[in-house]
Amino acid sequence: MKELQQWVRFVEAGRLSFGILEGGRIAEFSGDIFDQPRATGRLVELRAVTLLAPCSPGKMVALWNNFHALGLKLGKEPPQHPLFFIKPPSCIIGPDEPIQRPTGYAGKIVFEGELGVVIGRRAKDVALADAAAHIFGYTCVNDVTAADVLNESPDFAQWCRAKSYDTFGCLGPAIVTGLDIDAARVSTRLDGALRQDYPLADMIMAPAELVSLLSFDMTLMPGDVIACGTSVGVGSIKAGSAVEVSITGLGSLTNVLAP
Amino acid sequence: MKELQQWVRFVEAGRLSFGILEGGRIAEFSGDIFDQPRATGRLVELRAVTLLAPCSPGKMVALWNNFHALGLKLGKEPPQHPLFFIKPPSCIIGPDEPIQRPTGYAGKIVFEGELGVVIGRRAKDVALADAAAHIFGYTCVNDVTAADVLNESPDFAQWCRAKSYDTFGCLGPAIVTGLDIDAARVSTRLDGALRQDYPLADMIMAPAELVSLLSFDMTLMPGDVIACGTSVGVGSIKAGSAVEVSITGLGSLTNVLAP
Repeated sequence: MKELQQWVRFVEAGRLSFGILEGGRIAEFSGDIFDQPRATGRLVELRAVTLLAPCSPGKMVALWNNFHALGLKLGKEPPQHPLFFIKPPSCIIGPDEPIQRPTGYAGKIVFEGELGVVIGRRAKDVALADAAAHIFGYTCVNDVTAADVLNESPDFAQWCRAKSYDTFGCLGPAIVTGLDIDAARVSTRLDGALRQDYPLADMIMAPAELVSLLSFDMTLMPGDVIACGTSVGVGSIKAGSAVEVSITGLGSLTNVLAP
Repeated sequence: MKELQQWVRFVEAGRLSFGILEGGRIAEFSGDIFDQPRATGRLVELRAVTLLAPCSPGKMVALWNNFHALGLKLGKEPPQHPLFFIKPPSCIIGPDEPIQRPTGYAGKIVFEGELGVVIGRRAKDVALADAAAHIFGYTCVNDVTAADVLNESPDFAQWCRAKSYDTFGCLGPAIVTGLDIDAARVSTRLDGALRQDYPLADMIMAPAELVSLLSFDMTLMPGDVIACGTSVGVGSIKAGSAVEVSITGLGSLTNVLAP
């Protein structure tokens, strides 16, 4: 079992770095976060830095219909294999970065609070029993969606377009390792009001199963993120409103839709 | 107007490099191919190296229904905005690398010969008149598809999954700059037999328009590739068969489905 650690990436005086959160300070590391990083011995005050997304995924594989409660509500059968779309690197932002309304888009912008699984080790055709060893840790995701784009065309559901706008992949605040998330809950608050509050135990396919199955679809690389899908309670965000995604043990990720 | 050049990436004695093809030799460059690369003065024999995909895209934005002839055949209206899915970095291979059948998938594997647009300069919210300046050059794409996966679920068209398997994004052999591709044709041969032969003039949205419109959906980065969609004549590939995508002025990209 991995030690419980909270890994963050940050900018300090214009310099990109990363480390482990310890109370109000960060123990800085250097090298590759996924390959034996080394402690530099420096302690940095958390309030003196700007946190970034805790990793820089080459791809975010984001699931649709992975919670029983939402599937029931939508009248959809549980899938036999993960149903997903891909969010590109260009959409990723970190904690407290503003979500930006796409230029020329006047429609609804929707929040979706989700568990994010961060890959730690290259995963290709991995058996279920070996999958957990490829998970580095967990983080919070807000899978932001331009809802009116999704079904704009009668011929083609625009999952990638609706979900790939710059700033629509909110990630953070930390990657937490060594945590058992089976009993955790995902809570999403819109300007403080609780809008989602669902148990991860309701997932149709849990993290290790997702890593195994998806590793047969494509090689998962260190830093890639699987967004596990959302459940009931998603809703739209008005300009200036704050969305806070909290997961038991993983902290809170807050992003405001830019006014 | 840019000079007509054929940029290739290659491995020589285990070392990754890139340069400009000149007959049977490569004039080696160093630095960033998209940001003032410098000639090293070395000439490398083409036959002494292994060509790679000519760039390493952070994302491949791949279009559906972008040719009048195919749209007519499928009975689909021309779209008002590019309809696309995203292929991740992990699916990219170069010329002469084998396409691999996904483990556990026994269904049809289909070729789609396409024009690839390689972005040279960061593009966000770019007007049509400025779009061409963000194009570095063009290359050949084979947008390989696991056809039976696409409509496996009645609830969710699996574009990303069907098209993101490792080795399903074939790219190359070179990025050609300074070429007017308006009059070019895309020809795809399966074991030498002509299966696709369509004019790029039949495109619904041409490269500059695609760059402009897509840059409002997401920031396009240097090295990102837009696969412009295919036209009529796609078909399935048997184990051991070679698919050769040729585009006027861009050379030929050949990949064999591993036996």
